[in-house]
Amino acid sequence: MKKSLYLDYAAATPLDPRAHTAMEPYLKGEFANPSSLHTPGRRQRAALEGARTQIARVLGAKPAEIIFTSGSTEAANLAMQGVMKGFPRGRVVISAIEHEAVRQVAAGLGHEGHQTGVLTVESSGGVRPEQVATVIDDHTVLVCVQYANNEVGSIQPIAKIAAEIARVRADRIARKVATPLYFYCDAAQAGLLNLQVARLGVDLLSMGGSKLYGPAGSGFLYVRTGVSLRPIMFGGGQERSLRSGTENVAAAVGLAQALELVQADRATEARRQAVLRDWLWQELSTHIEGLTLNGGIKSRLPGNLYFSVTGAAGETLVSYLDAEGIAVATGSACTAAHQEPSHVLLALGLSREQAESSLRITLGRATTKTDLQRLVRVLTAAVPRVRQLLPQHAKSSVQ
Amino acid sequence: MKKSLYLDYAAATPLDPRAHTAMEPYLKGEFANPSSLHTPGRRQRAALEGARTQIARVLGAKPAEIIFTSGSTEAANLAMQGVMKGFPRGRVVISAIEHEAVRQVAAGLGHEGHQTGVLTVESSGGVRPEQVATVIDDHTVLVCVQYANNEVGSIQPIAKIAAEIARVRADRIARKVATPLYFYCDAAQAGLLNLQVARLGVDLLSMGGSKLYGPAGSGFLYVRTGVSLRPIMFGGGQERSLRSGTENVAAAVGLAQALELVQADRATEARRQAVLRDWLWQELSTHIEGLTLNGGIKSRLPGNLYFSVTGAAGETLVSYLDAEGIAVATGSACTAAHQEPSHVLLALGLSREQAESSLRITLGRATTKTDLQRLVRVLTAAVPRVRQLLPQHAKSSVQ
Repeated sequence: MKKSLYLDYAAATPLDPRAHTAMEPYLKGEFANPSSLHTPGRRQRAALEGARTQIARVLGAKPAEIIFTSGSTEAANLAMQGVMKGFPRGRVVISAIEHEAVRQVAAGLGHEGHQTGVLTVESSGGVRPEQVATVIDDHTVLVCVQYANNEVGSIQPIAKIAAEIARVRADRIARKVATPLYFYCDAAQAGLLNLQVARLGVDLLSMGGSKLYGPAGSGFLYVRTGVSLRPIMFGGGQERSLRSGTENVAAAVGLAQALELVQADRATEARRQAVLRDWLWQELSTHIEGLTLNGGIKSRLPGNLYFSVTGAAGETLVSYLDAEGIAVATGSACTAAHQEPSHVLLALGLSREQAESSLRITLGRATTKTDLQRLVRVLTAAVPRVRQLLPQHAKSSVQ
Repeated sequence: MKKSLYLDYAAATPLDPRAHTAMEPYLKGEFANPSSLHTPGRRQRAALEGARTQIARVLGAKPAEIIFTSGSTEAANLAMQGVMKGFPRGRVVISAIEHEAVRQVAAGLGHEGHQTGVLTVESSGGVRPEQVATVIDDHTVLVCVQYANNEVGSIQPIAKIAAEIARVRADRIARKVATPLYFYCDAAQAGLLNLQVARLGVDLLSMGGSKLYGPAGSGFLYVRTGVSLRPIMFGGGQERSLRSGTENVAAAVGLAQALELVQADRATEARRQAVLRDWLWQELSTHIEGLTLNGGIKSRLPGNLYFSVTGAAGETLVSYLDAEGIAVATGSACTAAHQEPSHVLLALGLSREQAESSLRITLGRATTKTDLQRLVRVLTAAVPRVRQLLPQHAKSSVQ
């Protein structure tokens, strides 16, 4: 069997062994309900609150501003449904390239009678901050812009967007418009970026363990003090009644540890990945004709490379590489099963055909230059073969 | 330090080492997004579907009828909100002693304009099946009765209740009333009971890992084919679009393994616990005066003993035992923090004073007779001392 090479870190990351070690006491022996009054219960509570404090410290937030969830999808649902529940006539605006979690929650809110709006992006994948105010009307309660895109890796100018939103807010106050305006940022892909919430100027921000070298089934929502949020799941009143359900202490501890570790050397690791990624793009575009980068190279996640291969189906390339032991993606894993062209690529202005001939390679902590040399070799051999597989009528566009 | 003795298994169970072993590959090394098209992704998918099949087999259900959730609270929310979303004018009926998860979802539905109804229980803690039809009107869409109570351990006659519901359903069909009628059963505490859904006659049934020697943050909802359910969390469309969010494969695998193991020797273990429990009650009521069993002894979870101690505060007893290294509870951990007397005990007809002088001891797989002998010794010494602590005005009721 061929040695396996994983280059799909945007879809899932392995659990950091150090995070696993932090979790192990809670998987072996240590147990109790954190709401119990006895010593084992209080020990669980202390571990949970320790994890909360650890996450808050990374964000420069207060521990009480961190709500644990089962992942970033739940956190996005809590942020958006939880804010909008308080404003049945409120409008929500999302960027055109949000993750399915945010898009589908917005669609669900639309079905419930909320107005929704979309903030378009440039072909680079970036939101233009100066455009933000133009899509906000006086009924808009929530603006949702992700920190970094899961497909194309574009990093949004969150602090600048927040400044624009603050301007609208100030204007509302001057005009005595009482509707609040909140800024929610899905930061699921932002492990290597600056997560200081005060600097970012966000009101709500979510992350999940499964993209952060933390455990699957872990996540959190940061909710700035003063933001009016309602629960979407009811029960025992855990997490200040904002997220009921017996707390998952092992997951919280593992998530906190993973996040702290990811952030500890983020600048070094980001540089390392960017150098590798730039080398990879250089090599691939030298060896293979007809590659077009999706999105811009500036303000892009360091480990993200996403491009269209003229005249080749992305799915076939994924299968070919998979047969060689290399795991890459056509785009978001969350939509891989749906057979729809990526809404992200369409929003960037790509044709359906370009979107369907796209390949996403995402680097991670374990990726080495040797790995990428192998990828270059295999992909260079793969592309001409996969191009031959394309039906005759589609070949016209092949160079 | 005193050797610790845990007798609070209704609040939380330790993770079965065999379930942990089943999870370990997915915590160490094996990883990928189960929605990814490549081999590592498909391996995760296979593990997830294997776990689904394993759970379905235990229930005598089809794999497609099992939806993984982050726990039993989320499953209860999905069952109840998910059904009622389709019927904005529908009514929901719950028993008077449901868990906070079910109670609070019902309360939330009430706030959203749904009618709600309550099915009372006898002093034994049992629902009378013949009463069920009397609380169902033609607008009632959902009836929620737990399998076994988390505080008092009363086991409900689920199959008989289902038969009554089926009768109402047949009558509706005869009268051409189109509103469906579903039966949801919260089975969080029912690990040692018969879980054959066809025999039980339920439409929806939920369980969670943290009470089943499975991992915290794991759970499932059984949804009978044909039941109309809408999602409460939106996103990538996982779990047949009924529960979005990257799947937690380790949790699913651990839960399936734990459930299968709990069910494999359930009759033997139930007998063993019942014998110990009956011996314990015999000893305690011999050595300590003024103990009253909460609920009936028949149709009671084998590991559950819950009683009032005349003239002693339950919380003080818990603290006293805790200082001796013994973990027990006053009642539900989920409400322990709220300082409210148990709604379950009040529904059984206990006074507020009796409810506040209650102690819950719940046995588990590791509990031995030696453990309970120690408990008898410590509690026998504790009760007179705790009774002396009671303020003078409350002493009148002490024998």
